[in-house]
Amino acid sequence: MGADGGVAPMVEGAASLSLDAHDTSLLLVGDERSIREALSRCSHAASRVTVLHAQSSVTMTDTPSEALDRMPDASILLAARAVADGSADVLVSAGNTGAVILAASRTFSRLPGVRRAALAAVIPTLEPHGPHADPFALMLDVGATLETTADELVSFAVMGSAYSRIVSNIERPRVGLLSNGTEPKKGTKAVVMAHERLARTNAVAFAGNIEGLDVPRGSVDVVVCDGFVGNVVLKMLEGVADAARGIAKNAYAARLRYKLGLMLLSQGLRRVSELVDWKQYGGAPILGFDRLVIKAHGRSNARAVRNALKVATKTVERDLIAAIATGLDATRESAEPVAP
Amino acid sequence: MGADGGVAPMVEGAASLSLDAHDTSLLLVGDERSIREALSRCSHAASRVTVLHAQSSVTMTDTPSEALDRMPDASILLAARAVADGSADVLVSAGNTGAVILAASRTFSRLPGVRRAALAAVIPTLEPHGPHADPFALMLDVGATLETTADELVSFAVMGSAYSRIVSNIERPRVGLLSNGTEPKKGTKAVVMAHERLARTNAVAFAGNIEGLDVPRGSVDVVVCDGFVGNVVLKMLEGVADAARGIAKNAYAARLRYKLGLMLLSQGLRRVSELVDWKQYGGAPILGFDRLVIKAHGRSNARAVRNALKVATKTVERDLIAAIATGLDATRESAEPVAP
Repeated sequence: MGADGGVAPMVEGAASLSLDAHDTSLLLVGDERSIREALSRCSHAASRVTVLHAQSSVTMTDTPSEALDRMPDASILLAARAVADGSADVLVSAGNTGAVILAASRTFSRLPGVRRAALAAVIPTLEPHGPHADPFALMLDVGATLETTADELVSFAVMGSAYSRIVSNIERPRVGLLSNGTEPKKGTKAVVMAHERLARTNAVAFAGNIEGLDVPRGSVDVVVCDGFVGNVVLKMLEGVADAARGIAKNAYAARLRYKLGLMLLSQGLRRVSELVDWKQYGGAPILGFDRLVIKAHGRSNARAVRNALKVATKTVERDLIAAIATGLDATRESAEPVAP
Repeated sequence: MGADGGVAPMVEGAASLSLDAHDTSLLLVGDERSIREALSRCSHAASRVTVLHAQSSVTMTDTPSEALDRMPDASILLAARAVADGSADVLVSAGNTGAVILAASRTFSRLPGVRRAALAAVIPTLEPHGPHADPFALMLDVGATLETTADELVSFAVMGSAYSRIVSNIERPRVGLLSNGTEPKKGTKAVVMAHERLARTNAVAFAGNIEGLDVPRGSVDVVVCDGFVGNVVLKMLEGVADAARGIAKNAYAARLRYKLGLMLLSQGLRRVSELVDWKQYGGAPILGFDRLVIKAHGRSNARAVRNALKVATKTVERDLIAAIATGLDATRESAEPVAP
């Protein structure tokens, strides 16, 4: 209900998937009339689509805690409860990110060994990743947990690694810890301690510390950082393409051949922007709970919603929760002192 | 002595400045023979150049604390002592950054109200700044103080503002606090508290919180953050231009007209890279001490060294230390409770 484009892209994406995903049932939670109206306008497999009516919903501008307190039957809470009670297997939302995280944390339990949830994001990289040569890496946290302990960073590494393996089909995703230098002793106290623990465990393929320049380069498959740094980095990446174009224009506006070059490149740059746009990719996970949550971008179009639903299906079929739990167990074992 | 290009670019830059800066005396500290040899190869005003011999010097790969303990008469320590005892007014180095910061902190005192020093950097921005429309903003800290308190962030804001006013001639530099959202309550505890204090003071023109995308955009003249975030951001900016070019190439290698565009642009991009290169700009300050320190990039060429020396001269002539001290006083006054 709360996505920027309203119910239409959500319903269209779900309707489209219902036509070919024969093993998938879709539960659409929100204002029943709006949803049915949108459904009537697109072809879908009616037997695989169910509507659950919600009387209220959180908007993008609502304050999450206030909104969830005021609307105990908001669509995001009903959807989360449906996942909690087993009526559904995975929660997908393109609404208010804070409200999705809060609804999950109020409705689901955290996995053993996870103290804080992480919101992941897909970031564009120069180097390709995995068997499909995706020009993306996964970064977490990007805003759910601003200040983190070493243990939390380690759990982010495990969760990101499991997600990357299951969704991007990367057998042993390389995990990098974002710091101010590659040496193990570089970083905040939490980062230095997390490095020590990650270097000792076999639960993830730890590539050591990475630096800021490794982020756009894409030296690793999974970038681990606290939510404050992750949020700054993610928003910088959003802004930097525009800025680079603008700097070039400012500096060489007077020179015809650069102008010509820019003109020729502009369509290419537009396509590059699309390439790195969440709208096309579909979504990113909120990790740490005993239930699965995929957050699609608020500006998702029908194709992005369809992609988010497909990603969500994959996380269920390949049991992401079990993979994360196994990884967390493995780090706990390696953290325990070894008898001589 | 410790710069990537050895003594030659340092001596050449100083020699060049000695020819036109009639009010400036240059004290070159390091291996006397190497310095005299380099001096003999370039025209200079001998009356304005003095050499102070140092038997040892720190290299780029040395561990700062170990190197300074082992070499109590390293060139960086002799140079700092010359500034401390008044034989010189400002310290300029293109050597090991950690060693420069440590030498300063062992030799100088911190200004009242400053608990931690800050290393600033000049970052390329889309929007121009100041009367000369510089395509640069100042960011601090970028690595001297990884974890900061609110008070430290406030002192960084004051110091960066004073530097920007004095060196870039911006009358009331706009200072932004880097956070994960523009709302005053967004951020880590330290950031939220720093915001409150900066909003109350008149010591700086506080523009509020800025986000990651404001960094390349250049929405403010001075970006304030802790050294961990600043280091990540700075290195990301270094890497991102290459990555953007690479992504465009990867994605459209097969399409002739994009190739043509890239080819035409490549010289432009090279020039843009030069524009944002420290080598051309000259240096950035280490702030917080009762003595002035300008850190030039290790890869500085003679022109960059000359520029760094000119910037250093400006900080002396316009009394940056007094400007910082006044600003720090003003924040302390506004921090004190006001009687009703």
